Amino acid sequence: MTVTDRIAAARGDTPADLLLTNLQLVNVFTGDIYPTEIAIKGSRIIGIGSGYEAADTVDLGGRYVAPGLIDAHVHIESSLCAPPEFSRAVLTHGVTSVITDPHEIANVHGLDGIRFMLDSAKGGALSMYVMASSCVPATHMETAGADLDAADLQTLLDNPWVIGLAEVMNFPGVVYGDEGVLEKLDAFAGRPLDGHCPGLTGQALNAYAAAGIGSDHECTTVEEAREKLRLGMVIFIREATNAHNLRPLLPLVTPENSRRICWCTDDRQPADLLDDGSIDHMIRVAIREGGLDPVTAIRMGTLNTAEYFRLYDRGALAPGRRADLFVFSDLDAPRAELVYRGGQLVARDGALTITLSPPPVTALPHSININWDAVDFSIPADGQRVRVIGSLENQLITEHRIEDARIENGFAVADPARDILKMAVIERHHASGNVGKGFIHGIGLRRGAIAGTVAHDHHNLVVIGADDASMMTAARAVERLGGGLVAVDGERVLAELPLPVGGLMSDRPIDEVRAALDRLLDVAAHELGSTLHDPFMAMSFMALEVIPSLKLTDIGLVDVDRFEPVPLFV
Amino acid sequence: MTVTDRIAAARGDTPADLLLTNLQLVNVFTGDIYPTEIAIKGSRIIGIGSGYEAADTVDLGGRYVAPGLIDAHVHIESSLCAPPEFSRAVLTHGVTSVITDPHEIANVHGLDGIRFMLDSAKGGALSMYVMASSCVPATHMETAGADLDAADLQTLLDNPWVIGLAEVMNFPGVVYGDEGVLEKLDAFAGRPLDGHCPGLTGQALNAYAAAGIGSDHECTTVEEAREKLRLGMVIFIREATNAHNLRPLLPLVTPENSRRICWCTDDRQPADLLDDGSIDHMIRVAIREGGLDPVTAIRMGTLNTAEYFRLYDRGALAPGRRADLFVFSDLDAPRAELVYRGGQLVARDGALTITLSPPPVTALPHSININWDAVDFSIPADGQRVRVIGSLENQLITEHRIEDARIENGFAVADPARDILKMAVIERHHASGNVGKGFIHGIGLRRGAIAGTVAHDHHNLVVIGADDASMMTAARAVERLGGGLVAVDGERVLAELPLPVGGLMSDRPIDEVRAALDRLLDVAAHELGSTLHDPFMAMSFMALEVIPSLKLTDIGLVDVDRFEPVPLFV
Repeated sequence: MTVTDRIAAARGDTPADLLLTNLQLVNVFTGDIYPTEIAIKGSRIIGIGSGYEAADTVDLGGRYVAPGLIDAHVHIESSLCAPPEFSRAVLTHGVTSVITDPHEIANVHGLDGIRFMLDSAKGGALSMYVMASSCVPATHMETAGADLDAADLQTLLDNPWVIGLAEVMNFPGVVYGDEGVLEKLDAFAGRPLDGHCPGLTGQALNAYAAAGIGSDHECTTVEEAREKLRLGMVIFIREATNAHNLRPLLPLVTPENSRRICWCTDDRQPADLLDDGSIDHMIRVAIREGGLDPVTAIRMGTLNTAEYFRLYDRGALAPGRRADLFVFSDLDAPRAELVYRGGQLVARDGALTITLSPPPVTALPHSININWDAVDFSIPADGQRVRVIGSLENQLITEHRIEDARIENGFAVADPARDILKMAVIERHHASGNVGKGFIHGIGLRRGAIAGTVAHDHHNLVVIGADDASMMTAARAVERLGGGLVAVDGERVLAELPLPVGGLMSDRPIDEVRAALDRLLDVAAHELGSTLHDPFMAMSFMALEVIPSLKLTDIGLVDVDRFEPVPLFV
Repeated sequence: MTVTDRIAAARGDTPADLLLTNLQLVNVFTGDIYPTEIAIKGSRIIGIGSGYEAADTVDLGGRYVAPGLIDAHVHIESSLCAPPEFSRAVLTHGVTSVITDPHEIANVHGLDGIRFMLDSAKGGALSMYVMASSCVPATHMETAGADLDAADLQTLLDNPWVIGLAEVMNFPGVVYGDEGVLEKLDAFAGRPLDGHCPGLTGQALNAYAAAGIGSDHECTTVEEAREKLRLGMVIFIREATNAHNLRPLLPLVTPENSRRICWCTDDRQPADLLDDGSIDHMIRVAIREGGLDPVTAIRMGTLNTAEYFRLYDRGALAPGRRADLFVFSDLDAPRAELVYRGGQLVARDGALTITLSPPPVTALPHSININWDAVDFSIPADGQRVRVIGSLENQLITEHRIEDARIENGFAVADPARDILKMAVIERHHASGNVGKGFIHGIGLRRGAIAGTVAHDHHNLVVIGADDASMMTAARAVERLGGGLVAVDGERVLAELPLPVGGLMSDRPIDEVRAALDRLLDVAAHELGSTLHDPFMAMSFMALEVIPSLKLTDIGLVDVDRFEPVPLFV
């Protein structure tokens, strides 16, 4: 449709395609709500008010119409689904645009992984904007599948869906002026540069902001967020599966500062997405528990986010903007009943009304490349006492414990009775033969093993088990799946979730993914004896060597506090 | 200064250039005001808070520091000064950035005129951003000095100071999809497109907005502004010399909508700029008379404007942003005591602390090209009754009057006793010989004549007089000045203001310009008998054939309501 056609329909000389009547418009520009009509031509709103005629008219029965929601920051891979099925989960909740950092798939497949996300988004019905992943790999104490420098990232700038640089987690690199980091900032100068700086304060925070970083989504306290707001950073309040910042940060929001605050989910597992929703869930909590004005809460998930990311075609209902609409009945608990994207009805009462195209999985190579000759879980005893990772429920940080090793026949072995399990990280990208080995406390398996290829941020193959045979069964099972999660006991595979897309995402419907994950959790708890709600999620962070205190990567144990590798035996 | 240097200073490893202490920071992000310190390196703020050291430290004695102000829309030519002297007038009032539409000089000199403004801004100390003039000429019922189409305007896009398309006054052209107008919108797609649509409402307004027009500064009532706000347009509230919209529109502003509202001056004469100020004056009135929260009022002249125009390096005080500072003592009546631009002190207590460079006047050709052989003010009587422009004090609209002509020797002549003067518009760009002739009521000269080359929008030479001899003296005097304003009586030139830059602007200090204009007004009132406060300003709008009802251009009388030329005699 040309602008000429759009203007002709707007002035009423030609009919619109769709006219929505009998509605209450939520105006995020002015803060008021009023009855009116919305005329749509093609993908755009062309008129608001009376006097329009259209090929189709829909009576909305007095319901509220707000702009389609925008998630300011999400790693789609955490849904364990490729973009089309992720879009099912969020579109049905009124989210019509997301800004994603494809950091996980980038750590496996590099630029090809990012391009896969961009391509497969076409099979969904979501506007998926990409921020180029800035920290691949996270550190040099791991082996990731790719290494992306500024020149690599710059090749993405031709794509109109790539709009900025994703969370610069290497905040010390910014603050101390690391050349490679500054090259990335420079490559994306003039575009949004997202931040990630938990706890950064004072002059270091000034330095981070002075470098041009415009946002942060890692705040955990009002005080922290307020300092960042004052220094000009936009705050994305996050409510993830593994990080619950919404309720602690709600007191931050005031009429004076709310324009500088947005909502984001960061990482959400399928069950949370399906049961609670996306940022619509945050809006409901903000209204109900935080006492936020509903229009303010909606604006934080629409106009504010659109303006921060300079997406001037959305985030509000106005002539010329996209007809992305979030239709609901209860102003105090907005829940999507109808969702339009680009003028098309895409969801009704929690179900999609359109057909998704499957992701182009074959575009990506098989991602499991292991040198099995080098894989041996045995640990010759080289002393009496070992470092043990102390996993803490619902926390990403670990304890750095020193324990007596259980020695059998000259080898250090797992000791399930003391909840000391063996853990291994098998490099799976380049068949290097790297296998990091160690022990972990707090996972609680009484027998068998669990394994998976979701292991932030390098996503090598992680195995935790009570005996070496179960661990080998688990590792081999994961390879057979082409990546994924498994629970095994001896030679028996008890449950599995294939994640063939980079070892991170399924190509199946999200309901199936959720059911398989539920089955894995059930088996881990009831057949293997784990005491954790989700030992797979816990496992996925035990190899992340940027979060204290002791972690295991494919190169071995890392003392994160000293930021250097350490031996297993002390 | 490299970003590495900036970051090093921000983290405190190297000293800043300037440290401002003992101040109250006005934070437009959060709405709060608090004591802190500001560290500056080069042109940028690099740190806010304690712990910084610098080569120079300035104790601000507890004064408030707000961001430098930004005028959202101004025609610098209305100051009758070239950009350097205009910058003197506004910098001393705390305005460090303006967004200008060089519409007047563009109508005289086309692209060369716009480039002159861009070049001469370098001699000032102001950030002068240009919106490309969209309506040159205003209509086809006049002869302007230039005709700029989309291809012409596109050549400006290389200049980083050209940021968008200026007020699209041809709103019927937008609403009815005129091809040439749409080409201009398309040429500037993705950039701010400013609007100008007085009184536009309903579907026509929807069409104007659907075309992508993002702002309007022509609202005169709260109701009009509210409709535009709701449709997504940003409202620039204007307080010009000849249009006083501030007080009527103050009730529009609410905490919910204020982020969508900015301040602008549009057109201000030297006396207003020097005596009242620029948008700082609007901020004081808004606080004092409108009861606006001071931070909100300041934000409407800083952050809001910066965000609308996508100038992310200014509009707020934060690390990485420009050190453009507006320092004042009284929060209820902010008046600039110190002004910094890019870290440099540029004004103190109303006087510049820097030296301006004169404008590169010689870059422009002489702009007065008249075919004198064709200039003859006599009007052979072709009937008994004539159309007479009815000028109304302080209004741009005129009455379309029909009066008995005074006939002498077969010629229609002026009749000062009935306040019917003769008016002529001499085409002065191309020596075409066009001379429009007619009569005007309401100017009130008892004798002599006034003339000038400031005549919106074509800026031909306009003369109004009581006798043909005085008119010829006046017209010739204007040519001798190379453009400007004069008041004459018979053969005597009583007062004059040379405006050699395009016939629109002086190359002299603004104080001199103001004194010369005061003298002209004094002479017009006391020696020629005019009853108007400013007959020159009134005259400058009598040739503007886009404002009803009857106007005179170089091609003759125009009935604006019917939008067509009409004969003098009826």
